[in-house]
Amino acid sequence: MSDYLNELKPPHRILMGAGPSSVHPRVLQAMTAPILGHLDPDFARIMDDVMVMLRIVFKTSNSLTLPLSATGSAGMEAAFCNVVEPGDTVVIAANDYFGDRMVDIASRCGAEVHTVDVPWGKPVGPDLAALEREMQRHRKVKALGVVHGATSTGVLNPMPEIADLAHRYDALLIADVVTSLGGEEVDIDLWGVDISYSATQKCLGAPPGLSPITLGPRAVEVLNKRKTKVQSFYFNLANLETYWSENQNRVYHHTAPISMIYALREALRMVMEEGLEERIGRHARNAAALRAGLEAMGLEMFADPGYRLNPLTTVRVPGGVNDAEVRRQLREVYNIEIGGGLGEVAGLIWRIGLMGDSSSESNVLAFLSALERVLLDEGYEVARGGGVAAAQRSLVG
Amino acid sequence: MSDYLNELKPPHRILMGAGPSSVHPRVLQAMTAPILGHLDPDFARIMDDVMVMLRIVFKTSNSLTLPLSATGSAGMEAAFCNVVEPGDTVVIAANDYFGDRMVDIASRCGAEVHTVDVPWGKPVGPDLAALEREMQRHRKVKALGVVHGATSTGVLNPMPEIADLAHRYDALLIADVVTSLGGEEVDIDLWGVDISYSATQKCLGAPPGLSPITLGPRAVEVLNKRKTKVQSFYFNLANLETYWSENQNRVYHHTAPISMIYALREALRMVMEEGLEERIGRHARNAAALRAGLEAMGLEMFADPGYRLNPLTTVRVPGGVNDAEVRRQLREVYNIEIGGGLGEVAGLIWRIGLMGDSSSESNVLAFLSALERVLLDEGYEVARGGGVAAAQRSLVG
Repeated sequence: MSDYLNELKPPHRILMGAGPSSVHPRVLQAMTAPILGHLDPDFARIMDDVMVMLRIVFKTSNSLTLPLSATGSAGMEAAFCNVVEPGDTVVIAANDYFGDRMVDIASRCGAEVHTVDVPWGKPVGPDLAALEREMQRHRKVKALGVVHGATSTGVLNPMPEIADLAHRYDALLIADVVTSLGGEEVDIDLWGVDISYSATQKCLGAPPGLSPITLGPRAVEVLNKRKTKVQSFYFNLANLETYWSENQNRVYHHTAPISMIYALREALRMVMEEGLEERIGRHARNAAALRAGLEAMGLEMFADPGYRLNPLTTVRVPGGVNDAEVRRQLREVYNIEIGGGLGEVAGLIWRIGLMGDSSSESNVLAFLSALERVLLDEGYEVARGGGVAAAQRSLVG
Repeated sequence: MSDYLNELKPPHRILMGAGPSSVHPRVLQAMTAPILGHLDPDFARIMDDVMVMLRIVFKTSNSLTLPLSATGSAGMEAAFCNVVEPGDTVVIAANDYFGDRMVDIASRCGAEVHTVDVPWGKPVGPDLAALEREMQRHRKVKALGVVHGATSTGVLNPMPEIADLAHRYDALLIADVVTSLGGEEVDIDLWGVDISYSATQKCLGAPPGLSPITLGPRAVEVLNKRKTKVQSFYFNLANLETYWSENQNRVYHHTAPISMIYALREALRMVMEEGLEERIGRHARNAAALRAGLEAMGLEMFADPGYRLNPLTTVRVPGGVNDAEVRRQLREVYNIEIGGGLGEVAGLIWRIGLMGDSSSESNVLAFLSALERVLLDEGYEVARGGGVAAAQRSLVG
């Protein structure tokens, strides 16, 4: 009855699901620093550091670049509710669970939402004919929404082409880079993405709890020309910007989550130390090894070749194998978490994350070895050692 | 230019502002525990512990009691946007900055908002005639909003009477207990409060970042009978409840801020160890000593006697004294943060918090001693040692 009086002792899992990813001890340690007030000049300097590094990671010079005091789904909500007004037309290119979430969120903002569905596991593009037809059908599309790295399917959508399309129809492009930022090429300014948001617990290597967001000049203009109030107080970027402004007149909006900002600063500092390109390269290298290992074990990838997301690999659950039982054994026997399928692919795929600190050679090898043993236990025949050997070849390669 | 590459080294301030309060090392330490996945059964048990202890602290048996993944202002937004539909009538009894924020937030939900203003520094009640007249004027009031412990004025509003009034007019009572929970008597079920929300960084003793919220049966009924969708996805309590449910079928909604939940569990565990009544007593005792000290120094309280909030004391800035300079010296020379006035009392009052771990005898004495020296420096004559001596007498007495 009073388990809650017991000491907190969570097990030390290897986090290879769809996020959160494992967090480096240095980042956890940063959260033990003493709390500062949210208007303390010393805290303001920490906020400045975070904004500078977020701009480097997003590859943007956007002034309005800050971490929302909530998780990634809040970033999606803030992206839509700040620029969409009731009655606006919004188009979503949906090829995963989070595209569907965009549809839900944009409707809650009062938008008239039109969806261009792409089968799960396939990319949106490079053939954008269907999306272009949808854009043409409307007098004015306020925003086009797309998920860059589709966390529920393991697909990486080709962004620059989609951004071009949005701008030809004078629409804002809202791009979800929750799973890609810090683990795949993301270039907000070069691509011309107008609004983009991410989350701290994937490739950035911090705990969950914050959602970095950035708005370019076109989006800021739309924000400034709104006729109605933003329906959310908490996510109202015009006011948040006055708190996150890099001048001496910060205006209180809400109490910032101080310890989480400390963690984000330390995680971003580790990204800077590693180098963004080197980090993206690490995510690519480890993902390639994982895929080589899985394919050597006879498993079938879910996402289309050429559009596979490095931070998150999706693979079909082999016929006759009990999805939940495999994940349970991985968790309970080998202390490894992987993700199951979400939505329409629940029970059909596994989602194996190699994000942030979780993206390491040792995790790839430990996971392949554990999976082999669990599959053998489940009566699924795989060549012993084949997965690990293939991964090793890929890593040396 | 690259300060962001430097080690994170925030100073160790004594936090005696309006929150955040200082956080005990045990609570900070809890955040260094390894991250678990948000659907891990081991994390589910931690969530259960948090819910059980939140119910104890709120004094409620409400099933829908959970911490929102955002700060206290988000609690206010969630409270209104879940039960208010466009066109509903909402009445706010406003006697501080956060009452005004309630007006703003309820309007953003599409409510027709009516305000009963009470001068800042005065309580809402016990004379509720003006509020009752406002309630009578409308065919149907959906919700009555009031702040229990007014953080911008230091006033504690008498809740049970206000709850009775709301229910006589069949309105839901929404009570903000951000500053009072854990530091003043709060009895959600006995008082019949329908929706209440708090924040972790005040008297609960955790870092900022979460907002505990609780909904009683009347509120849940209103939630279930909504005709329109809740405008916020992120704060939609019907879905959040399926994730926070105490059964085996937790459904993913968003990735919970794992480390913050660890911190909240540890902070609540410390509340349990101390005892809720003892904790409230500690807040009262230290606040009494602080007031005795301030009055002995010739300073004038801002809030009406009999309605002063123990976690936060408000005092008028003496004539001729430079508000900002005093606070700067306290911060830079004595490492003590206190709050300035917000909104219409900016520059006119100081807000001195004794919340959670910050509510200690040593903080009271250190602050009074530092304030005396700063005021003397500023040319304001006070009897040397008088404040500290009066506080000591109060503590012994």
